[in-house]
Amino acid sequence: MTRRIVVIGGDATGMSAASTALRHSDGELEVVVLERGHYTSYSACGIPYWIAGDVAERDELIARSPEEHREAGIDVRMRTEATAIDLERQVVSFRAVDGDGEDGELGYDDLVLATGAVPVVPPLDGVDAEGIHGVQSLEQGEQIVKDLDGSSARRAVVVGAGYIGVEMAEAMLSRGLEVTILDQAPEPFTQIDPDMGALVRTAMEDMGITVLTGTAVEGFDTGEDGRVASVRTADGAIAADIVVLGLGVKPNVELGKDAGLQVGQSGGYVTDVRMRCVGHENVWAGGDCVEVHHRLSGQGVAIALGTHANKHGRIIGTNLSGGYGAFPGVLGTAISKVCSLEIGRTGLGESEARAAGFGYVTTTIESTNVAGYFPGAEMMTVKLIVEQRSGRLLGAQIVGRANSGKRIDVFATAIWNHMGVEEMTFMDLSYAPPFSPTWDAVLVAARQGVKAVEDDIPRSPA
Amino acid sequence: MTRRIVVIGGDATGMSAASTALRHSDGELEVVVLERGHYTSYSACGIPYWIAGDVAERDELIARSPEEHREAGIDVRMRTEATAIDLERQVVSFRAVDGDGEDGELGYDDLVLATGAVPVVPPLDGVDAEGIHGVQSLEQGEQIVKDLDGSSARRAVVVGAGYIGVEMAEAMLSRGLEVTILDQAPEPFTQIDPDMGALVRTAMEDMGITVLTGTAVEGFDTGEDGRVASVRTADGAIAADIVVLGLGVKPNVELGKDAGLQVGQSGGYVTDVRMRCVGHENVWAGGDCVEVHHRLSGQGVAIALGTHANKHGRIIGTNLSGGYGAFPGVLGTAISKVCSLEIGRTGLGESEARAAGFGYVTTTIESTNVAGYFPGAEMMTVKLIVEQRSGRLLGAQIVGRANSGKRIDVFATAIWNHMGVEEMTFMDLSYAPPFSPTWDAVLVAARQGVKAVEDDIPRSPA
Repeated sequence: MTRRIVVIGGDATGMSAASTALRHSDGELEVVVLERGHYTSYSACGIPYWIAGDVAERDELIARSPEEHREAGIDVRMRTEATAIDLERQVVSFRAVDGDGEDGELGYDDLVLATGAVPVVPPLDGVDAEGIHGVQSLEQGEQIVKDLDGSSARRAVVVGAGYIGVEMAEAMLSRGLEVTILDQAPEPFTQIDPDMGALVRTAMEDMGITVLTGTAVEGFDTGEDGRVASVRTADGAIAADIVVLGLGVKPNVELGKDAGLQVGQSGGYVTDVRMRCVGHENVWAGGDCVEVHHRLSGQGVAIALGTHANKHGRIIGTNLSGGYGAFPGVLGTAISKVCSLEIGRTGLGESEARAAGFGYVTTTIESTNVAGYFPGAEMMTVKLIVEQRSGRLLGAQIVGRANSGKRIDVFATAIWNHMGVEEMTFMDLSYAPPFSPTWDAVLVAARQGVKAVEDDIPRSPA
Repeated sequence: MTRRIVVIGGDATGMSAASTALRHSDGELEVVVLERGHYTSYSACGIPYWIAGDVAERDELIARSPEEHREAGIDVRMRTEATAIDLERQVVSFRAVDGDGEDGELGYDDLVLATGAVPVVPPLDGVDAEGIHGVQSLEQGEQIVKDLDGSSARRAVVVGAGYIGVEMAEAMLSRGLEVTILDQAPEPFTQIDPDMGALVRTAMEDMGITVLTGTAVEGFDTGEDGRVASVRTADGAIAADIVVLGLGVKPNVELGKDAGLQVGQSGGYVTDVRMRCVGHENVWAGGDCVEVHHRLSGQGVAIALGTHANKHGRIIGTNLSGGYGAFPGVLGTAISKVCSLEIGRTGLGESEARAAGFGYVTTTIESTNVAGYFPGAEMMTVKLIVEQRSGRLLGAQIVGRANSGKRIDVFATAIWNHMGVEEMTFMDLSYAPPFSPTWDAVLVAARQGVKAVEDDIPRSPA
């Protein structure tokens, strides 16, 4: 007998779950995907680079079109929005977004929630004005490109200096605009500690970006044409021809919440390690709409990131087709760049470590990316957060130039394995002058971490 | 009472041991360094890049001059060669290399052997001809630069296609010479498996380098001026205006061997984890002249590499000044490049795994360095050697373009921690389009490694 899987959301998690399940089935599965937008399987993370012009065509961001998925046997229904879930009857209600399609109900044997995240849009005066854009979906990206191509916008204001904010600041700069970036926090890029964020600020200022921190947006004023003209803040108005909102996202869980699914403290669906919604054998969820286990803090966190979304999709698909897949949790590893500045982080930042109750010391070192005498040698700054006494690595942050950021993966792998800085000091990492100094920055940081732990140990009076 | 430490060899290990010991002492240490050459603390690994012209000045390769070391309180005696060690009397005999200095004896409380490695020079007919160069010391590098600057050399032949060979091939190419590289092995770069070496061959050929493998050198012919004119092989003579010998090195242990110190199967001094020569409380050795413990094979290996040499020096210096330092062994991690091609390796290659008795499977994958749609996206090839049944990662090799090679450190950290490929599949590595696809090459390789392990498990008949 055919088993029907209904997937809500046709991006990374949803399509990966659908195709993995189908690939491992023997024709006993029917897979239906409901997607309210125009696209499937695209790289939202790539949008800033398309807007910047680094990626020439929108379609390059699309890994697989609805047609390609259909050819693979998946029943993809575009512009179709799920409106309700009845967990008892095992039925999803849907409606055609464009009004000319079919509304109805669809029964399922297994349900996959891959509804992603929704942007945080503050209820600010004038936020709906023309020229103010979110940048979370490919549709929104299209609107920005259209707006930039069709207007004579000269001054861009980016609200929010997190990942998407700094990436959009770079994109606007690449487009030749004057760029101001705003954030309420004291330093940009709150995913890293303020002392490291200050390095990002300096670098962005050197690139010609105006960085206004400790600045809350109060509203937006429009010109006579109804288009945004300035951003209102406590410190005055900032003229703007175009505004990008990069205020982060939150899990999109209304549908499941209404149906009675459990949502955690982070706002995402609570699942078991196999990505099954707790208490529901045949309901699965993954990607930006779920809460995942942080391996260090032990807490549930919501992290909107394509790599997790893809992993979840594969795990769900594996489980749906009789295999075993389990998500081992996250460390909060992330990487970004603003022009030539690379920013990486993994594990816990200082405030996260404190919130989790850890006692810690920190150390911050500077090192070159390649041998100091090698052409292109540039400094990078590495900060470690290390547990008191035990010396266990809790977190690492990198701000530097070319070929510095990806070193965060070495720290991530070390943290994953509960390494202490003492053992890390003499790890066998690769060395050649075009790739690192004889002591790679990772080793230098570990060594200084050892000293910080030592210095912190109280000495008995002599 | 003052304790005298005598260090033989003034490069990475020796000077690092000397300065670490002195830095942590309270004036009770006298440190004497005997160095037979002209330089201290220089980067031998940087020589090819100086010859290529990437590094403008020789002195950029010198981290610290003898004068700087003297200012730090180290008694550095240049052009002074240790000729014998009397372990019982605790005395080193030395002679002035230039003949105008002092010969004599020097008593020690602690002795540090940091005599490095000597190049493997086969007893080939004509190998001493003018125009044939080794490339292990800064003095030899100087000779090559002088030779190239002063001659109209057009055709370079590099004998040996290991690290130093391929780096010198790049250097000669940068200098505008026609380059041929020779090796007895079936593929270049025997530090990686032949199937991966074949990728290096193709890339080098595409760069215009002539790659002759399975080719043994029989001797060198000279012209009327006494200068090398061609390299004789079984397959005929290859015209050469300049020849570089890149045949690897072996531990320089004659001095200690004569004195009765133990040398292992690898040819290097045998030490304990604190880098103390076994059986001798006050004799230490480190760097290219020692044998180190391979963490996977459990065997003693000799690996000439600046990063180990520096670690050993620091460990010896720490122990000499009353601290505790222990070397945890190696994985054989290494990285190199030929022009834009990056080559990384860690752990065991296939033949090493076999020699150590491991049963293994392999998997080879291709992935992009950055998101496939991102500008500059290029392919890299990753090969894993994975233990049968257990799935433990035994080795990894990478051949790829920009920003691929340093990923070897993630594998090295994983192997260091005894990770299996199953667990590695969902590791939290960093992702953003300018840095990797949503599935980083490390994760893709791990996943394929899992499949290879599965496929290898015998199935019971149905």
